[in-house]
Amino acid sequence: MTVTVDIWTDINCPFCYLGKGRFEAALRGFDRRDDVVVVHHSFELDPTVPADVSGAVEQHIADKYGISAEQVLANERGIAAQAGELGLPYKVGGRDYGSSFDMHRLLHFALSQGKQETLLDALYAGNFAEDAPLFGDRERLVGVAVTAGFDEQAVRGVLDDPEAYAEDVRRDEQQAAALGVSGVPFFVFGGKYGVSGAQPVETFTRALEMASSEQIVTVGADSADTCGPDGCAVPQAD
Amino acid sequence: MTVTVDIWTDINCPFCYLGKGRFEAALRGFDRRDDVVVVHHSFELDPTVPADVSGAVEQHIADKYGISAEQVLANERGIAAQAGELGLPYKVGGRDYGSSFDMHRLLHFALSQGKQETLLDALYAGNFAEDAPLFGDRERLVGVAVTAGFDEQAVRGVLDDPEAYAEDVRRDEQQAAALGVSGVPFFVFGGKYGVSGAQPVETFTRALEMASSEQIVTVGADSADTCGPDGCAVPQAD
Repeated sequence: MTVTVDIWTDINCPFCYLGKGRFEAALRGFDRRDDVVVVHHSFELDPTVPADVSGAVEQHIADKYGISAEQVLANERGIAAQAGELGLPYKVGGRDYGSSFDMHRLLHFALSQGKQETLLDALYAGNFAEDAPLFGDRERLVGVAVTAGFDEQAVRGVLDDPEAYAEDVRRDEQQAAALGVSGVPFFVFGGKYGVSGAQPVETFTRALEMASSEQIVTVGADSADTCGPDGCAVPQAD
Repeated sequence: MTVTVDIWTDINCPFCYLGKGRFEAALRGFDRRDDVVVVHHSFELDPTVPADVSGAVEQHIADKYGISAEQVLANERGIAAQAGELGLPYKVGGRDYGSSFDMHRLLHFALSQGKQETLLDALYAGNFAEDAPLFGDRERLVGVAVTAGFDEQAVRGVLDDPEAYAEDVRRDEQQAAALGVSGVPFFVFGGKYGVSGAQPVETFTRALEMASSEQIVTVGADSADTCGPDGCAVPQAD
């Protein structure tokens, strides 16, 4: 039986990166992992950032919350330590911030190609593990997608058309709002079991087990036209 | 949010063909149909039929249940009338019976290609709507798959290797048994809501609605490390 995991995420959200790593650790240990279908959904941490604005993330955070640049770096080192426990590379310092709307549009394009996971992993690596800003550089975004195996013309086509997959991004965000989701990552297992944040691996394991062991509730008549080892309950022609 | 529909089915089961048509009628009218993921699972009505045995289905049914050939045809006409209401072609008479194991193996191969639905529709059409036996003729089976868009060498490769995808078929059947499923079609919506048999369209609509409107239950801590519009709840580095 198929178990779905819907994950709301943003590319510039370090806890989404950590949360994905912890969820995947749980998935690797789940005996019915072949039955699990994962779909990633769009969530912009800050939908108000204009498309052409970006800058160093440390200074942006320091300014926004009135903390020192050193404190921001200390926080980053804390996240890097947690990433290290999962074997995830995490580069402290040098990231930029900016609008993720176009990245989410590309993730919906990738979903339509059956390769959403590939692109998300490439975007996370580009943002958190590699030594170059991702948000401020459209050519680098194209390069990350192409290196991940996507067709360059198709990627440019999506980026050149501001409405391409835009409605899909908005629909994901509306659904997050309808669910009361105010922070990401947010996971829903089997359409029912919610996990908020980068929780411990065991929490994801528990959610997978709960979603895959639901008691079946009958909808409609108990019996209807079926075929079985004893034949088909065919309608009687008077 | 993704809604899964798991459907256990057999190719030689007329009510599976009808049930799929009714489910799809419900799906067409479901406003969140783009979020629905359908996976078809294997169920052999008669796993004891040897691979090399087949024959006319009417006579087989008449012999098996001690009813007249005319009664069998009358039953078939009743099913054809129900198929007609759904706009599904159904040819009365001329079908054959036989082992569906290899077809189920091919359906798992098709699933691995992301084209399971295409093959299942082609097999149903080949068995119920077209004027040639499907079970008794391996070359026709290859032809149906190739016409549906599958690579001939790959299809022959699966059929030539009796263990290819065989474990997937058995696993589906074991899960059906574990769920207490004794007849098909059997549908599970969202891992929870079961519909047995070719029920009316409205029943499938109700199951879709129930599966897509589950109340979210929180697993794990209410709050954990998340990022939101007000920033990330980053771990405090003492």
